[in-house]
Amino acid sequence: MKIAAIGGGVIGGGWIARFILAGHDVAVFDPHPDAKRIVGEVLTNASRAWERLFQAPLPVPGQITWVGSIAEAVAGADHIQESVPERLDLKHRILAEIEASASPEAVIGSSTSGFKPSELRAGSKHPERILVAHPFNPVYLLPVVEIVGGGAAADRTCALLTSVGMKPVQIAREIDAHIGDRLLEAVWREALWLVNDGIATTEEIDDIIRFGFGLRWAQMGLFETYRIAGGEAGMRHFLGQFGPALKWPWTKLMDVPDLDDALIDRIAGQSDAQSGAHSIRELERIRDDNLVGILQALKANDWGAGQVVRQMEDGFYAREGVPDTGYPLHLHRTRVSGGWIDYNGHMTEFRYLQVLGDATDAFMIHIGLDANYRAQGCSAYTVETHIRNLSEAKAGELLSVETRLLGHDSKRFRLHHEILREDGSTVVTGEHMLLHVDTKAGRAMAMPASLIASLDAVARQESAAHPEHAGAGIRRIGQPEKVG
Amino acid sequence: MKIAAIGGGVIGGGWIARFILAGHDVAVFDPHPDAKRIVGEVLTNASRAWERLFQAPLPVPGQITWVGSIAEAVAGADHIQESVPERLDLKHRILAEIEASASPEAVIGSSTSGFKPSELRAGSKHPERILVAHPFNPVYLLPVVEIVGGGAAADRTCALLTSVGMKPVQIAREIDAHIGDRLLEAVWREALWLVNDGIATTEEIDDIIRFGFGLRWAQMGLFETYRIAGGEAGMRHFLGQFGPALKWPWTKLMDVPDLDDALIDRIAGQSDAQSGAHSIRELERIRDDNLVGILQALKANDWGAGQVVRQMEDGFYAREGVPDTGYPLHLHRTRVSGGWIDYNGHMTEFRYLQVLGDATDAFMIHIGLDANYRAQGCSAYTVETHIRNLSEAKAGELLSVETRLLGHDSKRFRLHHEILREDGSTVVTGEHMLLHVDTKAGRAMAMPASLIASLDAVARQESAAHPEHAGAGIRRIGQPEKVG
Repeated sequence: MKIAAIGGGVIGGGWIARFILAGHDVAVFDPHPDAKRIVGEVLTNASRAWERLFQAPLPVPGQITWVGSIAEAVAGADHIQESVPERLDLKHRILAEIEASASPEAVIGSSTSGFKPSELRAGSKHPERILVAHPFNPVYLLPVVEIVGGGAAADRTCALLTSVGMKPVQIAREIDAHIGDRLLEAVWREALWLVNDGIATTEEIDDIIRFGFGLRWAQMGLFETYRIAGGEAGMRHFLGQFGPALKWPWTKLMDVPDLDDALIDRIAGQSDAQSGAHSIRELERIRDDNLVGILQALKANDWGAGQVVRQMEDGFYAREGVPDTGYPLHLHRTRVSGGWIDYNGHMTEFRYLQVLGDATDAFMIHIGLDANYRAQGCSAYTVETHIRNLSEAKAGELLSVETRLLGHDSKRFRLHHEILREDGSTVVTGEHMLLHVDTKAGRAMAMPASLIASLDAVARQESAAHPEHAGAGIRRIGQPEKVG
Repeated sequence: MKIAAIGGGVIGGGWIARFILAGHDVAVFDPHPDAKRIVGEVLTNASRAWERLFQAPLPVPGQITWVGSIAEAVAGADHIQESVPERLDLKHRILAEIEASASPEAVIGSSTSGFKPSELRAGSKHPERILVAHPFNPVYLLPVVEIVGGGAAADRTCALLTSVGMKPVQIAREIDAHIGDRLLEAVWREALWLVNDGIATTEEIDDIIRFGFGLRWAQMGLFETYRIAGGEAGMRHFLGQFGPALKWPWTKLMDVPDLDDALIDRIAGQSDAQSGAHSIRELERIRDDNLVGILQALKANDWGAGQVVRQMEDGFYAREGVPDTGYPLHLHRTRVSGGWIDYNGHMTEFRYLQVLGDATDAFMIHIGLDANYRAQGCSAYTVETHIRNLSEAKAGELLSVETRLLGHDSKRFRLHHEILREDGSTVVTGEHMLLHVDTKAGRAMAMPASLIASLDAVARQESAAHPEHAGAGIRRIGQPEKVG
């Protein structure tokens, strides 16, 4: 596919980045003196994001060609994306220039956030191929595109955009500002009132969104969320409860449709079609698994609602009076998350090492090698690991880890973990060598007497008979097993 | 802390679950015949979610005690949470009953989504300790709570709620429906119009949210997102661009404040205070890293925008004409994500196995053991792994994997991966034994001739001289190294 991009601001640049990274060549026209710099910055962000986002080998990127005229850009193009400023007279001038040189089969998608296809098409020679294709920033990461103006051109555009990782939503009837910006505009107007009237600051409003319903909306929308709130009684019941609030003065924006039987029927029917394949209980679990995954992703980035989770975990670790666990030690338990399952239907390989690593962390806290200790500039790094996968864990299983200390000296300790399921059977064994390091200098160093004493105390409980497989390597194919 | 919960529906149950799981005892009063069942169901969901959410050892849960009267519930309670239906006369009656038996120091938080503290407090003996503490569903996962009605009671409540993993936001001036529900109500009213007028279905509206701005709002709110959209020119510039749209007929809800200089100054100043510590470029990267993490979490759950990512990855894997990579094979590259970094500032241990596992997947696709093959009921499982950590990878590093086939027979193959950084130095080596299995029967089976032929072809390129550490086990501390 050959793509032409007319306009290279943040939105145009986002389109260009998405097409190029998906392997398409793009010809760009934008006479603005900053256009190359802006597109370059967007491309840098987009490449960085795609390399993190996709765990599959990426295609060879397409080529970007800067050209000196619209005619040059659109010659031979299959798809032309217009992203010039929101002025209808300007859009008409640009669209006429595009049509003068483009193939009549080429689709022209407009990134307009406000204008309707009927407005864009006024005066066009081939009006049916001019569409609204309205994306959201950052275009290279957010999948949704509103497609307005149907027919064959819309179908072809949806296929192209799906192939570059987007989610086109075809809107049946044209309307000013389409759907997304109408919803955003409603929130924006209400938020402006809240700031204007001194009720809340921008930060308070943002926090209420991103620690609250914004988390829900990353995975289910307004209606599916409310369907769950209605419980088993369903959407109709929810609407019955919610309806009266429409008459209350809960907003500065008071024009509301009548929630009459016809509208209730329509919403309840559409909601059944949308979400009826899942029971409310299933939807709750799906929602919760998604929220857990989102919170953990934000925790990994130490941002927003994820910071709250991290602070709680720090608190859990810091609690005093960890019970005596006996020996072998039992310091870590976890449940197999739905997000840990691979294409074989079992816990994915690296998650076993996550559980083993968490058990190692719990052991380190047990002996005093905790966050306070690390803050002084020392830590222990794993230098070697031997994992034996004996059976497969499934989603929801409760796993516990049995931990033994196989040996230690002044700089190292050697652990053996056994991941057990509730019936006591072994899922995985892990053998791990850890090295005590000066983290700034990046080199091994002897442990202080306090840590050695903790390790000595644990070691006194360990028997001399180590697991048979301890110290063994992976058997060579075609050779008898050697136990090291 | 002793907590009393008056009302045990979905919201009351969510509160109870959060307090119990954080280790507090809760006395519950709710005469509704379904209350115990509903709270039980919420508790089941909440326990399941917390065990997935937190990777630290959870506290011993508190006890739930069902009591027969409000007086019994609130006796000796430090915090009383009222979650009864939204009728002011009912709330007044319940609050009076609570006050009759509660300690004057106990804080009474109301879950009301609509009423103001001044309304709740009418007729109270100790009005200053009655607050709005309004959470969002599911209460056990969403952190935000709106706290309205200030003073010492609010400060104590914020401390308690922070300790159970919440994010209290204190709202300075009381207003009907507080902040969150005003914003939600604005979207709800606009969405009702869209459905009423036949512009979009509930599913289309939900998709535009959850594949679009909902993803942004899980991590940044309205104002911080728009600050980025304004670019280096800042919030003031953005407001100048956005302002005129307030005069356009982009919503059925048309009452808007004047975006005059005073309001622009206020918003720009608040935005600087909120987000000014980061440059726009930094905010873009933070946003993108968060979106990547959220999309990957949703991909793991095969839901919403994550499905789009998975479909793209499937497409990338399915592309034809994978170039000849020479030998050793180079089949997998990745960049170290910011979310992969641990408390030591390096790539966390289990992510190395993720990279090794992805390289194993790429090898399997290379020999024809791909999704189509697995669909026929066979796969290969890792049964043993030996990892040597030679140095540490940092965020942003580009890693590539060099892969060798050390041996194979009719049922097994033995791989050696070396994770290299861009300068060619080795980060980690991995040795892996894989077993070909009948996935339904769950037992080893011989590979078909086509796979054996692929493995033979790869094996012909492998030299006899294996890496020295292949087959070795972890050295026992205090013993000379044995190479197996």
